[in-house]
This record gives sequence, C-alpha cells and structure tokens, in this order.
Amino acid sequence: MEFETALVSKARLIDQALDECLPPELAPPGVIHQAMRYSVLSGGKRLRPALVLGAAEAVGGRAENVILAACGIELIHCYSLIHDDLPAMDNDDFRRGRPTNHKVFGEAIAILAGDALLTLGFELLARAGMAAASPAAGLRALVEVAQAAGTEGMVGGQVLDITSQEVGVGAELVEQIHRRKTGALFVASVRTGAILSGASEEQLAALDDYGRAVGLAFQIADDILDVVGEASKLGKPVGGDAQKRKLTYPGVFGLPAARERAKAAAAEAVAALRKFGPEADFLRGAAQFVINREF
Amino acid sequence: MEFETALVSKARLIDQALDECLPPELAPPGVIHQAMRYSVLSGGKRLRPALVLGAAEAVGGRAENVILAACGIELIHCYSLIHDDLPAMDNDDFRRGRPTNHKVFGEAIAILAGDALLTLGFELLARAGMAAASPAAGLRALVEVAQAAGTEGMVGGQVLDITSQEVGVGAELVEQIHRRKTGALFVASVRTGAILSGASEEQLAALDDYGRAVGLAFQIADDILDVVGEASKLGKPVGGDAQKRKLTYPGVFGLPAARERAKAAAAEAVAALRKFGPEADFLRGAAQFVINREF
Repeated sequence: MEFETALVSKARLIDQALDECLPPELAPPGVIHQAMRYSVLSGGKRLRPALVLGAAEAVGGRAENVILAACGIELIHCYSLIHDDLPAMDNDDFRRGRPTNHKVFGEAIAILAGDALLTLGFELLARAGMAAASPAAGLRALVEVAQAAGTEGMVGGQVLDITSQEVGVGAELVEQIHRRKTGALFVASVRTGAILSGASEEQLAALDDYGRAVGLAFQIADDILDVVGEASKLGKPVGGDAQKRKLTYPGVFGLPAARERAKAAAAEAVAALRKFGPEADFLRGAAQFVINREF
Repeated sequence: MEFETALVSKARLIDQALDECLPPELAPPGVIHQAMRYSVLSGGKRLRPALVLGAAEAVGGRAENVILAACGIELIHCYSLIHDDLPAMDNDDFRRGRPTNHKVFGEAIAILAGDALLTLGFELLARAGMAAASPAAGLRALVEVAQAAGTEGMVGGQVLDITSQEVGVGAELVEQIHRRKTGALFVASVRTGAILSGASEEQLAALDDYGRAVGLAFQIADDILDVVGEASKLGKPVGGDAQKRKLTYPGVFGLPAARERAKAAAAEAVAALRKFGPEADFLRGAAQFVINREF
C-alpha cells in the first residue's frame, strides 16, 4: 500500500477512536468538552499516533492493540499546541486554518482544555497499558511519554523557544529546541507502540534512532514551510516564525543547508530500520513523507 | 502518636522525597525548575500525600512503598494551584504567604511550570506502580488519579468555579464544585495509597466514603477560613472569595450551617472507617484535623 493511503487509513481509525475517547460536548460542564473537541478534532495529520501504530506493526504487533496509546499521545500533542498558542506564549490567532482555542473559548478555558487533554492523555496511556500483554510495559511506556512531555522534552523545549528570542541565536540551541519540542515525542511515539507490543531492546534502540531522525526531519521541514509555504496550506500566516524572531533551522543555517539536513535526517531514519523487514514499510514511508510535504 | 506529630513526621518524609523528585534548579533550562520548586517547596501541609501514606498503613501496607505516588499526587495538587492563580483564572497575587508563581516568573513560565508538574506527577505515579506489588494496580491507581484531575474532577470543578460567578448561586452547584475541585483528589489519594498496597474492594469502598467526606469537610473549613480567618495564617488576604463572588459553603448556607455540615462530614469520615483497627488512626485524626484548623 502507498504510504499516503496507509496514513489516511490509520488517521481515520485514530479520528474515530479520539471521538470515542473525548467526553461528549453535552456532558457538563459542556464548554470544556467543546474546547477539547474543537482543538483535537480539527483535522490534523495524526502523524504521531500513526507512528505509534506503525511501530507496533514493525515489531510484529497489531495496530488495534495500541490505538488507545496512540490517542493518548495525540492528546498530549494537542494540549501542547493549545498552550503554545496562548497570549502569554506565542500569541497565535490561527492554527490549522481556524482561530486558536483561546480566540474561541477565552484564555481560562483554553488553559483548562490543555490541562484536561494532558490529563486524559495519560489516562488513555494507562488504559492502553492495562490492555497490553504486560502491565509493566504499560508503566514503562507511560514513564517515557511523561519524560518526553516534561522539562527534558516538550516543556523544556518550549521554555528555550520562548526565552531564546532574548538570549540570541545559535546552531546548538536550535537543534536542542527541536530535539525537545518535537523529537522527544516522536521517539516516545514509536517506542510506546513497540514497548506495548513486546519489542526487544535491540528493536527499541533502532526505533530510538529512527524517531530522533524522523522528528528532526519533520521539524526542519516545518521550519522551511513557514518560510516558503503557502498560507492556505499552512492554515496560518507564512513567515510567523521570523516575525516572532523564533529560532528556526533555515534562519540559522540558511534554506539550502536546512533542506540538505532534512533530507539527510530522513535517510538516517530509513537507515535505522535496516534490520526490519517489510513490516516497517509504513515507518520508512513516514520518513520520506515528512520531508516531501514541501520540497 | 498524636495526629499532628504524625502529620509533621509524614510531611517531613514527603518534603524530602519531593526535593529529590524535582529536577535541580541548575539543570537547564533552569528557570522552569526554579518555578516548579518555588511552588512545590513552599511549606504546604502535605495533607493529600499524607493521606496516601495513611491509607497504605490503614490496609496493612508500608508508607515507604507509596511515597512516590504521594509525591505524584502532591505535584498534581500544586499544578492546579499555579494554574488557578493565573490572571486569566482567579488572578491571585498571594499563595501561602508568598507571591504567586506568575508574579515571580511571569505568566508563560507559570503555565509551563504547571504543565511540567502535572506531567511529572503522572511520571511519579507510574514509577510508584513499577515498585508496587502489582504493576496492574499501578495502572489502576493512575487511571483513578487522572479521572480525579480531569473534567470529571479538578478541571471540571475549576470550570464550574470560574463560570458560576456568571450563572448564579445554588446549593447543589457549590457541593458539585467542592466535590470536583477538592473531593475527587482526596478520594484518589486514599484509594491510590490503598490500591498500591493491595487493598480489598471492600476496603476501597470504605476509603471512598472516607475520602469524599473528609474532602468535603476540608473544603467547607477552607471556605469558612476565608471568611473568619486571619490573613497572617491564611497567607493571603481574608475575604477573597466574597470579593471575587466565588460560590462558597458559608456564602450559600450561612456560617452556622456551614460549620455544622463540616462537623457532620468529619464524623461521616470517621464512621466510614469503622471496620478498620488502630492502623487507620492517622486517617481518623486527619478527619478531625481538617475541621479543627479553625473552629
């Protein structure tokens, strides 16, 4: 199956599961559930949860068995977008072509919707662990996702991101921000799918390398899109990063070097899967896909 | 041992464990770790984590075995305080006698410090599960804490709290807010300590009743303190709830009825422990303590 067809099919599964996992809009207090659903069910590509499913398949597991964990990771990703967009942070008005959460529901509800999604994300990860072959594997995966989301990962990356405008620009810093803000959750996604499916330590180490490389490729491509993309495809104004004096890969290294680095990272990701057979083809396709989005 | 001596001794254990669990201030990016430590290590009573330890003892477990879970629950409590205090929410300047987190570190870091504490809280709960007799029990406890923290619990209660100023006042609503904002985490605290220690379903049901009652008694007492307390003991200005037109128990029912209800709830909590022996004395003492703080 072509990668994009496979991604659409996985995204459909994930969207349906997310809809079932999120509390109904009418459950009181309704406004918070509306806010959660507004941001989660807004047509993302579902790349991270698809990687959870793909990693399960790569180690001989079944996608259906890790779907709750995939949803948990997507909710944690969505919480981070809502909080990053807040006026006190990046102060963004648009996301995926729609007004950001706080523009629709107000700041207080947006903060709480993020909190609730983060919380529900961990609940789903724990439920996924209960359904896994070994509950101990469930706990291990949850610890890894929490580390990827915490100050060593996403929160730490966001702190560096919002403070780097003040402290100045550096190649090492932009890589560190990318590794924490994006790379950590990509790594945790593939490892979670694999851990819950009973992967060996050797398989996990390979997926570690894969996740790091694919996360880097994705983030560089995202930075490039912000420079050369079309607003209609981006769902937000082009050039937002530069305007906010954000540290980006093309900003630090220039556009040609950024393109080369993204391609090299995608190749590294594919190379990391050398010991896997065709059951890892979805992961291989994903590595190409993240850079094909724009060049 | 007198209850207050036992509480101080448990709080000391918990403070030491919290200090060890929180990332060092110098670990980059330092500012987020400073902000986390500022709010967590600010001399709270540590009532919720002490109840985790007390519940473990009540069912024949050992406090040392559930200390990580106790820390996890305290971090989740602390995150909720930081976010509740934000300008977009209650806009409070003081907490425990010190400037609130966003007054010291700014809004962005305060939001992220809350996010990081919530995340680390779940990590610690998962680690506690790994050390428990059964990893499945660890996952179960984590799910319960997540539900207590989510829209059925703390987040939902905060939503009702900040929107109730608009929709008007009602006895049923104030009880619902208290149950979600405070009661849910009290229940989850005692259940977590007990679940991780291998409690029976019968014991858990009794602790459920206990947790609900002691949480209600605590929250009514807290409301009363806001009316009749001394600012020096409160660590914040007296009368803040009334000024913000918050729904409170004495505000809805009057001070005498609120006092009676708190006493009755404390008695219900003690009654729920009737099948436990002296190993539940700490929990019994806690029920008295929460209302003795002020009348």
